[in-house]
Amino acid sequence: MAAPLRILGIDPGLRHTGWGMIVSTGPRLTHIAHGVISPDPQLPLAERLAVIYRSVSALVIEHQPDFAGVEETLVNAGAQSALKLGQARGAAMTALAVSTVQVAEFAPRRIKQAIVGTGKADKEQISFMVKRLLPRAGEMKADAADALACAICAAHYHPGALRGVA
Amino acid sequence: MAAPLRILGIDPGLRHTGWGMIVSTGPRLTHIAHGVISPDPQLPLAERLAVIYRSVSALVIEHQPDFAGVEETLVNAGAQSALKLGQARGAAMTALAVSTVQVAEFAPRRIKQAIVGTGKADKEQISFMVKRLLPRAGEMKADAADALACAICAAHYHPGALRGVA
Repeated sequence: MAAPLRILGIDPGLRHTGWGMIVSTGPRLTHIAHGVISPDPQLPLAERLAVIYRSVSALVIEHQPDFAGVEETLVNAGAQSALKLGQARGAAMTALAVSTVQVAEFAPRRIKQAIVGTGKADKEQISFMVKRLLPRAGEMKADAADALACAICAAHYHPGALRGVA
Repeated sequence: MAAPLRILGIDPGLRHTGWGMIVSTGPRLTHIAHGVISPDPQLPLAERLAVIYRSVSALVIEHQPDFAGVEETLVNAGAQSALKLGQARGAAMTALAVSTVQVAEFAPRRIKQAIVGTGKADKEQISFMVKRLLPRAGEMKADAADALACAICAAHYHPGALRGVA
């Protein structure tokens, strides 16, 4: 039997960073927890980044993931948006790497393909399928659903997951 | 007499993050150290960000800055460049904030104004004036000169520096 793999999915954003924790045991997926990190927008930028960093670090301590999947960023928005997103992404990925959690990045298209079977699914379809794949997850915000989708994708594609070992 | 203020300047970048440490005592500036953090470009992104984070954290421990000045990013490049720069910036600013170092951001125009007296100076002028203002600094790479320029700007503009107290 495949060893259980603990996988943390992260969908980074400066206003809302979604996260979702699952366990993958061979083909079976189990929902553990999910949530959204939303730093007070009144805080200075550096403090908001520190909130993301500390929150992700705390998730790693609490849930001990074997690895993490982070949604790759689409940069079809303006450069100013890309910069903001990059900063949030930097804070989250740094927290994972400093905690020595292995990080894999997944393009949105690949995540959609893994969850819905097509690279062109919309947010509602993603959310619907995440709830079907993880029936115990209950209600969740879109950012948390995206993070859980990323974790499920990581379970499918990560070399460790494919071999069934961490 | 004004109390000495320890100021760390940072010019973030994914390939090269410049840093410069000065002490400002009233109008007098003293060079302490400078350098460039250059993570191995072969490393995965998360690891490169962790190198920036750990290096900035180590600088804070070694030099105990009262506050830090970070160069604000011009986003006249493409969104992909802005994203990369944002990630590096996120790692550096997170390290400062997690170390509870107060961070001030300065637009390149304001830094140039503080160093050269005009907002339209080129890199060579900045480097020349940084060396004049900090004659003991010796030779330095352009990224370190930019970081020292940012520290000098912070010494001029930071409310604490203007009052001469941390």
